[in-house]
Amino acid sequence: MDKSKFTAPISLSQIQITDSFWKNEMELVRTEVIPYQWAALNDSVEGAAPSYCMRNFKIAGKMNREKQQKGESYIEPKYTFRGFEALPENPDKLEDKFYGFVFQDSDFSKWIEAVGYSLTQHPDAKLEKLADSAIDIVCAAQQDDGYLDTYYIINGKDKIFTNLRDHHELYCFGHLAEGAVAYYQATGKDKLLRAAERFADCIYKHFGAGEGKCKGYPGHEIAEMALVRLYEVTGDKKYLELSRFFIDQRGTKPYYFDMEGHPEEKGGADGLRYFYHQAHLPVREQTEAVGHAVRAVYLYSGMADVARLTGDESLFAACGRLWDNIVNKKMYITGAIGATHIGEAFSFEYDLPNDTAYAETCASIGLIFFARRMLEIKPDAKYADVMERALYNGVLSGMALDGKSFFYVNPLEVNPAACRKDERKFHVKPVRQKWFGCACCPPNIARLISSVGAYAYTENDNTLFVHLYIGGKLTKNIGGKNVSVDISSQLPWEGNVEIKVRAEHTKFRLALRIPDWCAAGAEEVCGDNAQRGNICLPLGCKIENADEFNIEEKDGYIYLSKQWTDEDTVRLEFAMKAMLVSASAAVREDIGKAALIRGPLVYCLEEKDNGKNLHLLSVKAKNSFEISDSKIGDNYIKKITVLGAAQIAADCTALYNPLGTLREKDVTLTYVPYYTWANRGENEMQVWTRVKYN
Amino acid sequence: MDKSKFTAPISLSQIQITDSFWKNEMELVRTEVIPYQWAALNDSVEGAAPSYCMRNFKIAGKMNREKQQKGESYIEPKYTFRGFEALPENPDKLEDKFYGFVFQDSDFSKWIEAVGYSLTQHPDAKLEKLADSAIDIVCAAQQDDGYLDTYYIINGKDKIFTNLRDHHELYCFGHLAEGAVAYYQATGKDKLLRAAERFADCIYKHFGAGEGKCKGYPGHEIAEMALVRLYEVTGDKKYLELSRFFIDQRGTKPYYFDMEGHPEEKGGADGLRYFYHQAHLPVREQTEAVGHAVRAVYLYSGMADVARLTGDESLFAACGRLWDNIVNKKMYITGAIGATHIGEAFSFEYDLPNDTAYAETCASIGLIFFARRMLEIKPDAKYADVMERALYNGVLSGMALDGKSFFYVNPLEVNPAACRKDERKFHVKPVRQKWFGCACCPPNIARLISSVGAYAYTENDNTLFVHLYIGGKLTKNIGGKNVSVDISSQLPWEGNVEIKVRAEHTKFRLALRIPDWCAAGAEEVCGDNAQRGNICLPLGCKIENADEFNIEEKDGYIYLSKQWTDEDTVRLEFAMKAMLVSASAAVREDIGKAALIRGPLVYCLEEKDNGKNLHLLSVKAKNSFEISDSKIGDNYIKKITVLGAAQIAADCTALYNPLGTLREKDVTLTYVPYYTWANRGENEMQVWTRVKYN
Repeated sequence: MDKSKFTAPISLSQIQITDSFWKNEMELVRTEVIPYQWAALNDSVEGAAPSYCMRNFKIAGKMNREKQQKGESYIEPKYTFRGFEALPENPDKLEDKFYGFVFQDSDFSKWIEAVGYSLTQHPDAKLEKLADSAIDIVCAAQQDDGYLDTYYIINGKDKIFTNLRDHHELYCFGHLAEGAVAYYQATGKDKLLRAAERFADCIYKHFGAGEGKCKGYPGHEIAEMALVRLYEVTGDKKYLELSRFFIDQRGTKPYYFDMEGHPEEKGGADGLRYFYHQAHLPVREQTEAVGHAVRAVYLYSGMADVARLTGDESLFAACGRLWDNIVNKKMYITGAIGATHIGEAFSFEYDLPNDTAYAETCASIGLIFFARRMLEIKPDAKYADVMERALYNGVLSGMALDGKSFFYVNPLEVNPAACRKDERKFHVKPVRQKWFGCACCPPNIARLISSVGAYAYTENDNTLFVHLYIGGKLTKNIGGKNVSVDISSQLPWEGNVEIKVRAEHTKFRLALRIPDWCAAGAEEVCGDNAQRGNICLPLGCKIENADEFNIEEKDGYIYLSKQWTDEDTVRLEFAMKAMLVSASAAVREDIGKAALIRGPLVYCLEEKDNGKNLHLLSVKAKNSFEISDSKIGDNYIKKITVLGAAQIAADCTALYNPLGTLREKDVTLTYVPYYTWANRGENEMQVWTRVKYN
Repeated sequence: MDKSKFTAPISLSQIQITDSFWKNEMELVRTEVIPYQWAALNDSVEGAAPSYCMRNFKIAGKMNREKQQKGESYIEPKYTFRGFEALPENPDKLEDKFYGFVFQDSDFSKWIEAVGYSLTQHPDAKLEKLADSAIDIVCAAQQDDGYLDTYYIINGKDKIFTNLRDHHELYCFGHLAEGAVAYYQATGKDKLLRAAERFADCIYKHFGAGEGKCKGYPGHEIAEMALVRLYEVTGDKKYLELSRFFIDQRGTKPYYFDMEGHPEEKGGADGLRYFYHQAHLPVREQTEAVGHAVRAVYLYSGMADVARLTGDESLFAACGRLWDNIVNKKMYITGAIGATHIGEAFSFEYDLPNDTAYAETCASIGLIFFARRMLEIKPDAKYADVMERALYNGVLSGMALDGKSFFYVNPLEVNPAACRKDERKFHVKPVRQKWFGCACCPPNIARLISSVGAYAYTENDNTLFVHLYIGGKLTKNIGGKNVSVDISSQLPWEGNVEIKVRAEHTKFRLALRIPDWCAAGAEEVCGDNAQRGNICLPLGCKIENADEFNIEEKDGYIYLSKQWTDEDTVRLEFAMKAMLVSASAAVREDIGKAALIRGPLVYCLEEKDNGKNLHLLSVKAKNSFEISDSKIGDNYIKKITVLGAAQIAADCTALYNPLGTLREKDVTLTYVPYYTWANRGENEMQVWTRVKYN
């Protein structure tokens, strides 16, 4: 690791997103998701399973007050521990007890995190007041020792930290810390941050290398990266130490989760349970991404954080191996990960079934977390390429175009009849759902989209990195001088980018990522026009006014430097060519098939445009692509039409017949962006289509 | 239904199988499976999970004696009911209680049935003595009231017939009756038959339309057809009545299984549990084969039996609809059924995944039961075609060539790595297993193969039907005159059949099935040689000495009649041409692919012959087939080589790449019969291969 290359995200308070595409997504989150989510937290969404999240905090707070009034330091546990407290059929019969999943507290934390980010982009006094009142409710539940997990506060604190594997206390802590940091950074208000610190201190007292301390680690990772955020905002080194402890401890023998005692399941002969938790090996010995995909990428994100902050080369090397394993062997072309619904997990290498994929929205989000952390260590476009692919496809597909419904599972092929009739595909929904009892994906989308600027740009002393060409205005202070950088683009539809710099004769570098997708159009952009003053870099990227800058290219970034003035503009053109893509021949599910991409977008076929039985279609390998403006609902898109063939089904009703000649007719295939699928009702969808070579 | 067309199987005692192919299979059953099975029943197979079957009978018998000695009619239940009695880790600690699955008794019944059939073909005094002693043990457990299920005899008879849905009492009865009939027919010994009758009488007293009688029906069907067999051998009409009652009662509302009370599972909103048991609708209203595939075809077999014996047209119509549904929409080309392991069940129409198939051996066996019963009602080659396809492929693949290991699941595509690493494919084994705790398939294969003659031939007053050209010698008495019919063929390798009739100037008809597969070679067999005395029937079937007979053709059968003499010979030639077959375009898994068949055999590619990564191969549509003699182990086979292409994988390690030109090399594909796969160690296998049209 070369510390001089480390970069850090730019504070959202120094970014105003102006991008029309992303501004629209952020407005959906602000106007639809955040209010809906608040209603859900408070059990007031009709027809949706109650969350009981805020209610649990209130009950815990009430018990806290009662305890304080009585001068007691301990209350006798009143309720049984069952992991999930079944909801009563009649809500009138609610008792003063904990309801819902053990991780229900995190619903609040994800909400407050999204709120924080949103306030940086769109100040909203009413929302902030509401958030403050929610924080008051949450903080009132905190115990004298800093502990703050309502499941155990309500059910009895004698059992805290006794089931790390399944009971998500450290997960809830992690989300609380992330939310607290975000809200503090957005508003400067530190009440929740202080609560998170006190909870962290309580955890630090309990866990660690010291004698008598618990040697456990989280069942569901997130605390690792959350502790780093807490460290970075407070400067308190014990949080970094604790994060590192959790990471170092993981997978050591004897297995902590065994010592916890889960006699009912021993992990089986092949130890599937350890793989599930990424606890099968010490993390530095792990070379294959396994188990629950969200947990995995949350862990790897925390590992990258700790590697960067502690200069731990072996930990960074492990991150690199796991990264390569994912992107070279375990990732869908949409940036989705987690090929099997069993354990919501990675499947084996190159096993990427399209119609039974799990491909959880949250896992793509976690992959983006991981990618940005790798970028913070080393600016290499290979990380940003995947980040972009996951963002525009695997993540965006998780939310409807109107922001009102969500996918957990993002398959690459859907036959709605199969989703209803085949139990093996029951996890795949052909249309987005309103909300979920286990509400992980919608609020995760909300917090990612609201903070997308933190992924687009990072910086270090002398360089501003643009990883994603998301339009936005950045203000920076470099050597005491104010600099503003205004990026505008028409991505994902057009490859032109304009960057206006307004600086007081300041020297610094702009580092601009060359997207992987522009290589396909190298010839188109450069053509015969390559000349001084309009130079062509390799890989389909053109800088119009190149002679104004000192230009270097490294690891997929163009480094432009000069003494910037008050009227500098960089004009880039990235070739954006529609292109058929094949998967590695090792991917059995995609053999003989191709997907269509253009720029960062993956495209798909939908029944609405192409009729039923998408499996009968094939796309011609030698093809020209017609790209045209279109709409899905009120949303502008570019659709792509290409030549294909449709197999003509025989009239015969027999199931098996002598192989005849192939009867086909020419058809025009209409592709739409993958993230827009299932916004026109239930229908078939297919990303990978058979190729007709002749 | 036209009763004059009804046919009945020929008694095995009038058949001697001489066919070299089938004789070999029968000898494997006699010399390998039956002795192994007996050892398994008695828990003396090292390394195999104990069956406890005979032990349970002995315990029940002991309790019976104690009860009789004490003059008691009722023993207080001593043990708890749990459905499955976990086996103690230390066998020394065995108590006098029931161990194993609730259906463990049926292991004996399947064994005794196979023994019975085997004795008809190969008398064996030692085996018969062993069988008699086993029967003594079983009969000693029978209660005064005729009840004979050790699970309830040992655990307490107060609970009998209280959990029909899950506890398999009527299933155990069914197998007992089938075994008893077989053993009686083979040996003339009726001790077990009488026991089965007394058990049937006990059930008849408990169940039926009469007031106060229980209105339930079996959770796992088989009693329906078993009762018919009991009726046919004893002439006691109440058995037929009871079978009909079970069939009529099934699926009526309110659902009996609900009334039984299984509060823990209500069947869910979509009533999956009722579908599972084929109890979602009255049987005459059922049009789609659903649920557990073995149960389904056992039920349909019983329905066909009852339809035939009671002249019930509506029941026969239901059988016809369900038959068509299976063979036109839910059957693999191997005659396997049950496309999903979830519930070992039929999936939805045209959903026939190759690599996750359940395709249980027992389900193909059940389909053969159903087919023969349909043939008994109406001799139509469409039933026999499926019967033959299932027998030579979906069933035979269930047993290793040495008779020592077995498949439950018969997939049409296997990547061994996936079976080990992907939990969704854990049910698919890449090599056959020694024996199973739940021992249904191996003994089911044993009883089918031992009685294969009963499927090959049926008869009625004036006609002898040959459905399968399995070599055998039949003796018949027609109008007081002895007739012998000696069939010989080289099936499944050659299409020539010779039938020698030795009769004392007797008039009768030989009805000879024209297999579906010979149509493909119509031209080849007939060519320009069609002439008097060597006439060609349609569909690739030639009768050399046709002018000697009066010939009719109907429903896929050639009816030959004459006044047969002492020196008549029919010489048939069925074109046996290797042929590529496609599946209906509605089968998404097989689109663009073809399977290779020759005669009754489905062929497949194995890694042993074709290298790894079978998915990279394609077979040329316009092809010539080279058929040659070969061996797998000591077993003669014909292998087929054809031209194909192998895609050359790119050197690039990236998961996704721009679609390049298709790089392929010509290869020779080597196909072997599907039933022989996985006899040369663990390797990849594939039935459906992509087609290269140009």
